[in-house]
Amino acid sequence: MARRTPGLVGADLENLVNEAALLAARHNRDKISMDELEEGIERVMAGPERKSRLINDHEKRIIAYHETGHAIVAKVLPGSDPVHKISIIPRGHAALGYTLQLPEEDRFLMSKSELMNRIAVLLSGRVSEEIVFNDVTSGAANDLERATQTARQMVTQLGMSETIGLVKLGNKREEIFLGRDISEDRNYSEEVAYKIDQEVKAIIDACYERAKEILTQRRALMDKIAGVLLEREVIDAEEFERLMSEETAQEIPEVRIDKLPDNNHDFLA
Amino acid sequence: MARRTPGLVGADLENLVNEAALLAARHNRDKISMDELEEGIERVMAGPERKSRLINDHEKRIIAYHETGHAIVAKVLPGSDPVHKISIIPRGHAALGYTLQLPEEDRFLMSKSELMNRIAVLLSGRVSEEIVFNDVTSGAANDLERATQTARQMVTQLGMSETIGLVKLGNKREEIFLGRDISEDRNYSEEVAYKIDQEVKAIIDACYERAKEILTQRRALMDKIAGVLLEREVIDAEEFERLMSEETAQEIPEVRIDKLPDNNHDFLA
Amino acid sequence: MARRTPGLVGADLENLVNEAALLAARHNRDKISMDELEEGIERVMAGPERKSRLINDHEKRIIAYHETGHAIVAKVLPGSDPVHKISIIPRGHAALGYTLQLPEEDRFLMSKSELMNRIAVLLSGRVSEEIVFNDVTSGAANDLERATQTARQMVTQLGMSETIGLVKLGNKREEIFLGRDISEDRNYSEEVAYKIDQEVKAIIDACYERAKEILTQRRALMDKIAGVLLEREVIDAEEFERLMSEETAQEIPEVRIDKLPDNNHDFLA
Amino acid sequence: MARRTPGLVGADLENLVNEAALLAARHNRDKISMDELEEGIERVMAGPERKSRLINDHEKRIIAYHETGHAIVAKVLPGSDPVHKISIIPRGHAALGYTLQLPEEDRFLMSKSELMNRIAVLLSGRVSEEIVFNDVTSGAANDLERATQTARQMVTQLGMSETIGLVKLGNKREEIFLGRDISEDRNYSEEVAYKIDQEVKAIIDACYERAKEILTQRRALMDKIAGVLLEREVIDAEEFERLMSEETAQEIPEVRIDKLPDNNHDFLA
Amino acid sequence: MARRTPGLVGADLENLVNEAALLAARHNRDKISMDELEEGIERVMAGPERKSRLINDHEKRIIAYHETGHAIVAKVLPGSDPVHKISIIPRGHAALGYTLQLPEEDRFLMSKSELMNRIAVLLSGRVSEEIVFNDVTSGAANDLERATQTARQMVTQLGMSETIGLVKLGNKREEIFLGRDISEDRNYSEEVAYKIDQEVKAIIDACYERAKEILTQRRALMDKIAGVLLEREVIDAEEFERLMSEETAQEIPEVRIDKLPDNNHDFLA
Amino acid sequence: MARRTPGLVGADLENLVNEAALLAARHNRDKISMDELEEGIERVMAGPERKSRLINDHEKRIIAYHETGHAIVAKVLPGSDPVHKISIIPRGHAALGYTLQLPEEDRFLMSKSELMNRIAVLLSGRVSEEIVFNDVTSGAANDLERATQTARQMVTQLGMSETIGLVKLGNKREEIFLGRDISEDRNYSEEVAYKIDQEVKAIIDACYERAKEILTQRRALMDKIAGVLLEREVIDAEEFERLMSEETAQEIPEVRIDKLPDNNHDFLA
Repeated sequence: MARRTPGLVGADLENLVNEAALLAARHNRDKISMDELEEGIERVMAGPERKSRLINDHEKRIIAYHETGHAIVAKVLPGSDPVHKISIIPRGHAALGYTLQLPEEDRFLMSKSELMNRIAVLLSGRVSEEIVFNDVTSGAANDLERATQTARQMVTQLGMSETIGLVKLGNKREEIFLGRDISEDRNYSEEVAYKIDQEVKAIIDACYERAKEILTQRRALMDKIAGVLLEREVIDAEEFERLMSEETAQEIPEVRIDKLPDNNHDFLA
Repeated sequence: MARRTPGLVGADLENLVNEAALLAARHNRDKISMDELEEGIERVMAGPERKSRLINDHEKRIIAYHETGHAIVAKVLPGSDPVHKISIIPRGHAALGYTLQLPEEDRFLMSKSELMNRIAVLLSGRVSEEIVFNDVTSGAANDLERATQTARQMVTQLGMSETIGLVKLGNKREEIFLGRDISEDRNYSEEVAYKIDQEVKAIIDACYERAKEILTQRRALMDKIAGVLLEREVIDAEEFERLMSEETAQEIPEVRIDKLPDNNHDFLA
Repeated sequence: MARRTPGLVGADLENLVNEAALLAARHNRDKISMDELEEGIERVMAGPERKSRLINDHEKRIIAYHETGHAIVAKVLPGSDPVHKISIIPRGHAALGYTLQLPEEDRFLMSKSELMNRIAVLLSGRVSEEIVFNDVTSGAANDLERATQTARQMVTQLGMSETIGLVKLGNKREEIFLGRDISEDRNYSEEVAYKIDQEVKAIIDACYERAKEILTQRRALMDKIAGVLLEREVIDAEEFERLMSEETAQEIPEVRIDKLPDNNHDFLA
Repeated sequence: MARRTPGLVGADLENLVNEAALLAARHNRDKISMDELEEGIERVMAGPERKSRLINDHEKRIIAYHETGHAIVAKVLPGSDPVHKISIIPRGHAALGYTLQLPEEDRFLMSKSELMNRIAVLLSGRVSEEIVFNDVTSGAANDLERATQTARQMVTQLGMSETIGLVKLGNKREEIFLGRDISEDRNYSEEVAYKIDQEVKAIIDACYERAKEILTQRRALMDKIAGVLLEREVIDAEEFERLMSEETAQEIPEVRIDKLPDNNHDFLA
Repeated sequence: MARRTPGLVGADLENLVNEAALLAARHNRDKISMDELEEGIERVMAGPERKSRLINDHEKRIIAYHETGHAIVAKVLPGSDPVHKISIIPRGHAALGYTLQLPEEDRFLMSKSELMNRIAVLLSGRVSEEIVFNDVTSGAANDLERATQTARQMVTQLGMSETIGLVKLGNKREEIFLGRDISEDRNYSEEVAYKIDQEVKAIIDACYERAKEILTQRRALMDKIAGVLLEREVIDAEEFERLMSEETAQEIPEVRIDKLPDNNHDFLA
Repeated sequence: MARRTPGLVGADLENLVNEAALLAARHNRDKISMDELEEGIERVMAGPERKSRLINDHEKRIIAYHETGHAIVAKVLPGSDPVHKISIIPRGHAALGYTLQLPEEDRFLMSKSELMNRIAVLLSGRVSEEIVFNDVTSGAANDLERATQTARQMVTQLGMSETIGLVKLGNKREEIFLGRDISEDRNYSEEVAYKIDQEVKAIIDACYERAKEILTQRRALMDKIAGVLLEREVIDAEEFERLMSEETAQEIPEVRIDKLPDNNHDFLA
């Protein structure tokens, strides 16, 4: 079980154990089993299951393809956290489906290429909708927010844009890699604000193209996995590995983005 | 009755039942009848009837055409919630008339084409005034606010503008699809602010043209429905269906908006 | 009396009756007479009379022409509320004179042409000063504020400018048609801010030209009414109607404003 | 005495009488004499005398010419309040000298030409320093503040600039003609902000030129009055009239300012 | 002693006497002597001596030349307050050295030329570092702040820039000539903000050139005075006068600054 | 020990002694030894050791090269504080490794060349990552913040940019050289804001090039020191000196930056 919780610390771990203990009690067991611990992890990350939510078939399909998009791109891009589970059972307040990625070990540094891969994974749910349905939905709102936030931190806090350089922009510190950013005090000029906007968009666009390329080349795989997901509602790590491994390794051309720093060429490393 | 309340949840449903119970008590009945439940729904959505308000004949006519505009466009555009009732009896604090649309099932995702249709329906009251009276009134203020808000969210939160891309703009989250938006912290440059303004206007303009096209092609139908509305003050779902069905299905040319994303072509799906 | 108070509601009506009751008590009457009710209306609208204020003859003349301007333009423009009284007796904190317009019935909608007429009436006091004295005074400050506010709402809240379109601009709602507007949260770009400024100025300029045209063509009438006003200090509705009716109906050329929406051609309806 | 206090109201008058009563008590009189009332007026307007302040001869000369400048321009420009007293005895917290102008009657309106004359009078202290000493001092800071404030109100509140037009700019009302303005909420674009700045500067420049012209043509008179002031420290109304009347009336060319409204031609009316 | 405290008032004088009384008590004297009063003045102005601070020889040399720069320019420029003492004994929280200038009499007005001289004196510490060490240090931070503040007040409050004119810019009053300015409410356009910046820089640049010219021409004198200062740590007024008087009076060419007002020609008056 | 704490004052020193006393108590000694004092210094500066943190080998290598970069550049650039210790044992909340530089004596002034060297040292951790791994990480976030802050103070507070000049920009004082800056009140124009941004970037770019040059020329040395660090986790001052001294002194070409002041030529002094 330790392999599944390296990303959790302090209060999160406590929450997890509490949730698992409650579930065990509900199941009339006096020990916490592996099943209950896993359910505990998902509760802490996405809230309790909401099976009572009646989602119509069309939306169910959109959600299935959306999550399939996240999972495939996470699998294909090097250095992404492994996909532990894909689900289209609604959870908590807002999650209609989710793809659970768990890191294999604690991490303290994020490289530029890893951050770009992370953004590409975040965008791939929306990309999947676009490819399959030729229409896009409000379901990607949270993904876009997190992708933009990460791209913005790369540009303004982490010196990862050649145009901006090794300058830290904005006065208040933002907690990097957390879901919530704090309103910043703009201490730079309009011209620099525009350069930031352009760089953030360039990163997002590059990652979007990357995700689109990966998924377009795997349309059949998408249909297969989304189909299984619609049928069973949940796919676990082993099943996902099996479905992915059937795929023939494909040659993927390298992405080039002129506006981004030179060291970007290891994007696909 | 369940078919008429899928859009309501929690507190709303409680309100509805309370209102209906009060009405039943006032009618000296010990059971809540269907009539009282329906009236309850309208009270929760638009406030109590205000028959005492003396509205002059000219304004009455404007209101009738305004509501007729909403109703016809809602009926014509695919994927809009069905029109349940049209009324020109004033209600609550501000409603001089209203068109009650009720969803057929709970919805969790809104696609770009559905959002554009929703905006077109919101604008169609104003469009109707313009076509019929060649003057426009303050009566559309609330419609314009909601249409602008929806268009703005498409552009800044939902990544539905190709120019802006999959970037989330503005720092504080806004509750999407609720009537009230929260003041945002502008974290982008002037140039991007102007692009947002242009994109929002492009969406509004496209939806306006759409609504205008639909209504201009159905001028006779407008006169017929507004006439019935002025006579009876209220039109229910069945009557509205009957009035609409008399109309010959018309060929509606497709709308093209260059500035909007390519996937816009399914606007008329 | 009901004919004179359709514009008043709730708290205003209560104020009015209180004022009238106090006046009746002061006059040792046990019933409120029509005179006291009328005085009550004026107190609620402009404050108590301030006959003790010593205003010099030159300023008295300016005030008389200022009010005469308001009254004539209100009479000439279609759809304006009828002039109930013109007075140059100071009232309350700030009113040096006033023209009392009372609506003939409750109104719930304001059309674009009515709003433009209202602005023209507001500007006509200043226009009158300019025509007669070739100098302008601080006396129009409040008129300009209300005219600007109305024009701004037309452009930013009511979708009545073709350049801006059916977009609602500014984040906080403003109570439309009330004297006081609330500081807004600017959620648009500098370019749009400038377009708003241009549109507001275009509306004000068009209405100013309209008022100037009307008054320039009626200079003799202005002198006649201002003369009566200087002599008697107050002109009531009947007397005003009589003075106006002596005038020969004049052909007034139509105003055209290129920057404003096409439906503007019904300005003179 | 009534002639000397028309500008005062309410609290000011009470202050005045209190001050005069205190002075009478200090002089061991049981009645307030005319002298004490006059001293009371000056105390209310500029604070108590500060004879103990040791001002060096060079600064004394600058102050004398500064006040002489105010007084001469106030006398020459039509419609200015009459000069009641010129003094170079320091008063209160900040006044090193002062020119007391008292209105001859209560005023309720200020015309554009009167406001421009008022600004010219405010600037004339600085102008006098420049002409005589070829260097300028910090002594005009308060004059410049009041002149700018008045010019700004003409442009943004009173519709007295043709470029800006009859538009009221800025959201919070400012008490017009009081020494202190309240921070405004800018509700206009950068372009309009710049036009306001240009118009305010155009007004200030025009009034400055006017004051400079008047004083340059009266250099001998300036020397004479400043000389008397340095000798006696105070000049009263009669003495000032006598000194001014000795001057030969001079032909003063009219000021023309292109950027200002046409009705500006009555500047010298 | 009165000659040394004309610049002090109210609370400052009280502080001074308290400090002197404490020192007298510490010295077991029952009367305050002249020595204690002088030390009191310096304590009020720069804080208590900090002889314990170990400053290395290189920094000691920089400080000596910095203070020598202030003192020489203050002596050379007309109208500056006389140099009472130069010291490189650290005092209070931040002073590593100081040049004590005391006015000869109370002053109430500051002319433009005096203000420019004051700025030149403030900048001359930094100028001295640059000439001697060809590197500059953080030691001038407070001088630059006060110089900028004075230049800004000349431009925005005192009408001493011809480009800006006699317009007061910024809404809140700033206490002129005090070390601390209050955050202002910008009530002007970007274009004017830039003109202010340019004018402030033009003033600073002109004064910098002036100081540089004065010191470059007196390099030998600088070495002599800095040498004495490094040896004795303190130079009093008499000693400073003696050192300066040995210098041959030099012909100093006049400074011309195109962007500044014409009356700038009396800069060296 | 005094040689190792010149940079510490007041509360810091107290903290240090407390920490050392606690460590001595834990080691069952009744005297504080040199070892405990040294550990105390590091605790005060970077927090307690966190040996329990499991950092993977790849990240360990990145951290080792990052710290090696700081140490080599600090050694090579003249005037930098001596390197006392290099460590890759995590400490406190955020430090994954650290290079401890301790000044040899108290300092009160910072010259422009010293500040630029300090910035170069701050940037050299990131530079090292780039050279060795061809990818960059989030590990430099704090370095970039401090480097930017220092560069910004040089430009806006310390008059060290020729383009900006000796003007202090921004209204609130910032505590110079402390890690935290206070939000400033922008009192300058957009154009100046952009010039500041350009100057800050020019300084950062120049220092980055400097650090890159130094490290690129010492790649073998980097590998040697990073190797030792990975093996032993800590390198003390003597060991570091020994490793550095083996290196042959290299000719380093001078850096020239056109946009920066002329006195920049002593950058390598």
